[in-house]
Amino acid sequence: MLAKRRGSHIEIPGLASAHSHAFQRALRSQCQRQSASAGSFWSWRGYMYALAGQLDPETMYQVARFAYAELAMAGVTAVGEFHYLHHQAGGQPYDTRTALADALIEAAQDVGIRICLLRVIYERAGFQQALQAGQERFCDSSLDLALLDLESLRTRYQDREGVQIGLALHSVRAVRRESIRQASQVANAAGMPVHMHLSEQARELEECVAEHGMTPVALMAHDGHLNERFVAVHATHIDDAEALALGHARAFVCVCRTTERDLGDGHCDASRLLRSGARLCTGVDSYAISDPFEEARAIELDQRTRDQKRTVVAEASTLLEAASAEGYAAIGMAGQQDHDRVLLRADDAALIGASEDRLDDAVVFAASPRAVDRVEVAGQLIVSDGVHREYQQICQGFEAALSKLRQAAGL
Amino acid sequence: MLAKRRGSHIEIPGLASAHSHAFQRALRSQCQRQSASAGSFWSWRGYMYALAGQLDPETMYQVARFAYAELAMAGVTAVGEFHYLHHQAGGQPYDTRTALADALIEAAQDVGIRICLLRVIYERAGFQQALQAGQERFCDSSLDLALLDLESLRTRYQDREGVQIGLALHSVRAVRRESIRQASQVANAAGMPVHMHLSEQARELEECVAEHGMTPVALMAHDGHLNERFVAVHATHIDDAEALALGHARAFVCVCRTTERDLGDGHCDASRLLRSGARLCTGVDSYAISDPFEEARAIELDQRTRDQKRTVVAEASTLLEAASAEGYAAIGMAGQQDHDRVLLRADDAALIGASEDRLDDAVVFAASPRAVDRVEVAGQLIVSDGVHREYQQICQGFEAALSKLRQAAGL
Repeated sequence: MLAKRRGSHIEIPGLASAHSHAFQRALRSQCQRQSASAGSFWSWRGYMYALAGQLDPETMYQVARFAYAELAMAGVTAVGEFHYLHHQAGGQPYDTRTALADALIEAAQDVGIRICLLRVIYERAGFQQALQAGQERFCDSSLDLALLDLESLRTRYQDREGVQIGLALHSVRAVRRESIRQASQVANAAGMPVHMHLSEQARELEECVAEHGMTPVALMAHDGHLNERFVAVHATHIDDAEALALGHARAFVCVCRTTERDLGDGHCDASRLLRSGARLCTGVDSYAISDPFEEARAIELDQRTRDQKRTVVAEASTLLEAASAEGYAAIGMAGQQDHDRVLLRADDAALIGASEDRLDDAVVFAASPRAVDRVEVAGQLIVSDGVHREYQQICQGFEAALSKLRQAAGL
Repeated sequence: MLAKRRGSHIEIPGLASAHSHAFQRALRSQCQRQSASAGSFWSWRGYMYALAGQLDPETMYQVARFAYAELAMAGVTAVGEFHYLHHQAGGQPYDTRTALADALIEAAQDVGIRICLLRVIYERAGFQQALQAGQERFCDSSLDLALLDLESLRTRYQDREGVQIGLALHSVRAVRRESIRQASQVANAAGMPVHMHLSEQARELEECVAEHGMTPVALMAHDGHLNERFVAVHATHIDDAEALALGHARAFVCVCRTTERDLGDGHCDASRLLRSGARLCTGVDSYAISDPFEEARAIELDQRTRDQKRTVVAEASTLLEAASAEGYAAIGMAGQQDHDRVLLRADDAALIGASEDRLDDAVVFAASPRAVDRVEVAGQLIVSDGVHREYQQICQGFEAALSKLRQAAGL
C-alpha cells in the first residue's frame, strides 16, 4: 500500500501528470456546445487554435500558473508539459527564442511544482499537407534550430531544482521520419525522456499507413525508437503486436482518460498494455478537468465498461503507482515522488469508512480534489487547507489573461 | 441556462439522485480487489449480501444518514431510495413491519433532504430458482402483505413534508409477471412512481427471454406498464424498438454511470433514448462515488467514448435538467427542485474561467463536490461551507455502525 494513515490525514506520495498542455485550461467549459464547428475532435482543435494564436509569454505565464495551481490543489506535484507553442503568431521567433518555454517553467516554479518541459518538434500539418493557419507558431525553420533550442533549454535549466528538459515529437503526422530519427538521437545521447502522441485518432492511423505503410506504433518500433524513456501518449488505437512492442521496450503509455473522454477519442486497452509489459502513467492533457484521482480510476473503470467485467486492468495500488511513481519516471524524475507528499483529509466524506487495509482503494476509487488538504514539494508547503498559498493573486492574473485572450480571438 | 451568477456564487436548483441503495455506502472501497469472488457483478453482489445480512434498523439509519449527508454535501437535495431490505435476516418481519423503511425516511429527514421511499417487491431469485441465502430479507410471504406495507407507508407519510412513497419492482428476474401487473395497478391507482431495474446485465436478458419470450423492456411494454411515471433503471442492453417503446410512453431512464462503470455493466445508449423521447435522470445507485456532477457528465462523456464523437447525447443544460428537474419528476416531486438550491463557489478552481454564457457547461463538465458551498432544502440551510451541519456526529454514528456490521459479517 502506498497510502498511509498519519493522524487525521491519509498520506500519499506526490502525483505526476505526465502529459499537459497548460494553455488549454483557457478552453475549459467554452467548447462543449453542439454546432457546425464543435462536434468532433478536429473542430475542437479549431477553437484551440484560435485561442493559441493570441498567446504571448505573459498570458501563457498567467494561464499556466493557474493551471498548475489547480493541479497542485488536486494533489499533482510534477507535470510533463508537452510544449508546442514556440514562436510568435506568424512564426517569427521571439527575441529570446525560448520565451514561451521559459514562461511555462517560471509558472511551475512560482507555483512550486516540478516540471519537465518537453520541447515539441512540429514540422507539418501532415503528409504532403501544407501548414494550416495557426500552425506557424509550432514550427521551426529547421530541425537544427529546434534542436538548438532544446540544447539551450537543457543547458540553462540543468542545475535548476525541480526542472527537467525532455524531447517531444508531436506525432507521426507532424514530424517527418528522418527528423524523428535525428531528434531521437539527440535526446537519447542526453538521456532525455521522449514523448509522442501516438495513435490517438483513427484518422492519424490512416494517414500514417498511407505514408509509411505502417501504423504509428509499428513505425516507431520498426525504426528502433521505443525504449524505457519513450512515452507514447494515448495509444488508443493499437493492435496486439503494437502493445507487445511497447511492452518489450518497457516503454510508457500515458493514458489521459478525462481528455480522451472529452474529445471522443475512444479508449486504449490498458489491460492489454499492462499485460504486455508496458508501463502506465496518467496525464491531465487538455485540462477538461483537473483531477488525478479520476484519471487513475478511469483507466480501470472505462475498461470495465468495455469488457463488462470488474478489476480488469489493475488493482488500486498499481493505479496509484501509475499516477505517482510511474508518472515521475516517465518525465525523468524517477524516485522524486517520495520527496513530495499529499495529505488527504481522512474525514473527507468520500474516504470515510475505508478500512485500514483498503486506503489505496479508497484514494483511487473514491477521492476527489476536495480531500486534498496539504501538498508539499521537496519540503515546501505549497497548498494548505486545500488552497494554494497564492491562489487569489493567481486567479486574478488568470482572469485578466483570459479576458484579453478571448477578446483578441473574438471568442 | 439553469445556473445563475449570485455574487460570489453560482446557483443551481436542487439536484436529485433518483436511484439509491443507501446501505451500499458501507461497501465503498471494500471490494475493489481481484479475487475468486470479486471479479464480476455477481460476486460483488456476494459481498453486498454478506453486509446486508447484518443490517438492523439502527445500523441502517446510521449508514443511510451518512450516505445522505455525503450526497447533500455534493449538492443532492432529493433521493429516490430503492428499498429492498424489509425484514429480519431470516425473513421474519419486524414488530413494526416497515421498521427499515422508517429508518431510511428518518435518516433523510434528519439530514434534511427529500426522499421518495420506493418500496421494492422481490419474490424470487429468478425464474424457477429458489431463494438464495441472504435473500429472505427482501421477500414478503405474499404479494398482498407487500402491498399492505406499501399502503401503510403511503398513509403514514402522505402529509409529511419532503417525503413521497413509490413502488419499486426489483426486476423481471425477481418479480413474477402477474405480480408486476397487480402491483402496478395499485401504484397507478394512487399515482405513484414505479421504478424497476431493467436490462442492467446481459444475463438478466437471457433469463427473461427464456421465461417470457421477450426482453425485459419489451415485456413491460407488451403488458402496458410503461407510462410517464415509470422509471427504468439502467436500460443498458436495449434495442431500437425498446428505446422507442420507452420514448413513446414518455417513461424515464435512470442512468447511474458511476455505478455502471464500477460494476462493469456496460453503457446505455442515452443518445438513442433521448432521441426516442425517453426522459433521462441520474442516480448514485451503489455509492461507488457520490458526485452528481460526474453522474451527469458521464452520460455524455461515456457516449463520446463509444461513438468517438463529441456532443452526442446532449448539451450541458439538458444534462443539468436530467440531474435536477427530471430527477425530481421521476420520484414524484416535479417542480420542487425550484424550492431547493445549491450554491457553488464561483471561485472554485474547477469553475474559474467559464464565461457568463457558459455557466451550465462549467457546472456539468467541470464541477466536483469541492465547489459546493451552501445547500438549502425548502428554505432550510443544511450544508454550509461545504459541510453538513451535523457532520461530526453523523460520521461517528456511521463509523460505529460500520465496525459493528463488518465484525458481524466477518468482512
